[in-house]
Amino acid sequence: MKLYHTPGACSQAPHIALNEAGLSFDRIKVDIPTRTTETGGDFTEINPKGYVPALVLDGGEVLTENVAILSWIAEQKPDLIPDGTLGRIRMIEALGFLTEEVHKPFLGFMFMPSDEVKAINRQALEERFNYLAGQIKGDYLFGDRFSAADAMLFVMVNWCFGFGIELPPALAAYHARVAARPAVQATLKAEGFA
Amino acid sequence: MKLYHTPGACSQAPHIALNEAGLSFDRIKVDIPTRTTETGGDFTEINPKGYVPALVLDGGEVLTENVAILSWIAEQKPDLIPDGTLGRIRMIEALGFLTEEVHKPFLGFMFMPSDEVKAINRQALEERFNYLAGQIKGDYLFGDRFSAADAMLFVMVNWCFGFGIELPPALAAYHARVAARPAVQATLKAEGFA
Repeated sequence: MKLYHTPGACSQAPHIALNEAGLSFDRIKVDIPTRTTETGGDFTEINPKGYVPALVLDGGEVLTENVAILSWIAEQKPDLIPDGTLGRIRMIEALGFLTEEVHKPFLGFMFMPSDEVKAINRQALEERFNYLAGQIKGDYLFGDRFSAADAMLFVMVNWCFGFGIELPPALAAYHARVAARPAVQATLKAEGFA
Repeated sequence: MKLYHTPGACSQAPHIALNEAGLSFDRIKVDIPTRTTETGGDFTEINPKGYVPALVLDGGEVLTENVAILSWIAEQKPDLIPDGTLGRIRMIEALGFLTEEVHKPFLGFMFMPSDEVKAINRQALEERFNYLAGQIKGDYLFGDRFSAADAMLFVMVNWCFGFGIELPPALAAYHARVAARPAVQATLKAEGFA
C-alpha cells in the first residue's frame, strides 16, 4: 500500500489513520504546485485530480477523497468505526462535514484572493469549530474511542493553530489529547513536525 | 421518515434517491434564509447546522450531510450501490468529490462577493465537470445501473443549466438520460419544476 501525501496537508488524516490501524504502507511525498512526486514522477498519473491524499491499495486500485480513504482504512480496522447501528454512517457524516464545511472553507480562507471572502471563510470556520466543540462526546468525537473521523478533526484543529483561527477551549483540550497518541506522534514525526 | 429539503437545492439528491429506492417519506420544505420549516418550525432544532438536507429516520435519528444521507439510502436499497468489492467505497469517493469539489465551489460561484473568486470557482467547476464527463462508464457514473452518486451528479449538472456553467457534451447527454427516469421526473414534479 502506498500513501501519496504532502506533509501538513489534509493527507495527514489518512496518514494518522493508517498508523492508528497498524497497517503497513509506503509514504510518497507530493509537491502540490508542480504535481510531482518525490521521485520525480507525474502525480496526475496516480490521481488525475492532482491533489493529495491518494492511497494505492495492494491490488493497485487508487482511492482518493478523504471521506472514502478514511472510511476504507476504518473498515480494515473496525476499532476506528464508532459504535452503534449507525456508527459507520455517523463517521461518514462527520467526515462529510469536516471535508466540505471545514477543509474547503479553510482552503478558501488561506488561498482566495479577496479579503472579504477570507473573512467570510474565517467566520464560517469559527462557527463550525464551535459546533464541533459541542459534538465531542468524551475524549473523542464519538466517545472514549478514537475514530477515523478524529484523524480528520485533529488535522483541521491543528491547522487552526497554524493559521490563527480561534478555537473553543474544548477543542484545544481535544487537540492535546489526540496529539499525545503514539500513532499521532509517529505521524507528526514522519512528516517532519516533531 | 421525513426529508427536510428546499426545492432545487442539493437536497434534491436524497429526494431523488429516496424515490429511486421506493422508500416512503414525508417532505417538509425549509426556507433557508430564515431557517424556518413550511409549518413555521425552527429548522435549527432539527439540524443545528441550519442547512438542508436533513433526513429524520423512523427511529427519530437525524442524518445530515449528503454523503452520509445518500450512503444510508443506498444501503436500504443496495441496487443503488455500484458493483464490486470497492463499490460502496467508490460511491463514497464520488460523493466526496461531488460535495467538496463541486457543490461547495458552486456555492462559492453563486454567493461569494468577489468577481475574482466567482471566476476561480467557475473555472474549477468547468475543470471538474470535464473530469466527471470522463468518468461516466456507461449510461451512469458506474456503468449501466443508476447509483446514489448519480442522484448527486444529476443535481449538480442540473445546476449548470441554471447558472450558466459550460457542460461537456457527455454530461448534457447524461442529464437527459437521468431526467427521463420516472423517479427523477416524480422528484422534479414534487419540487415544482415539471
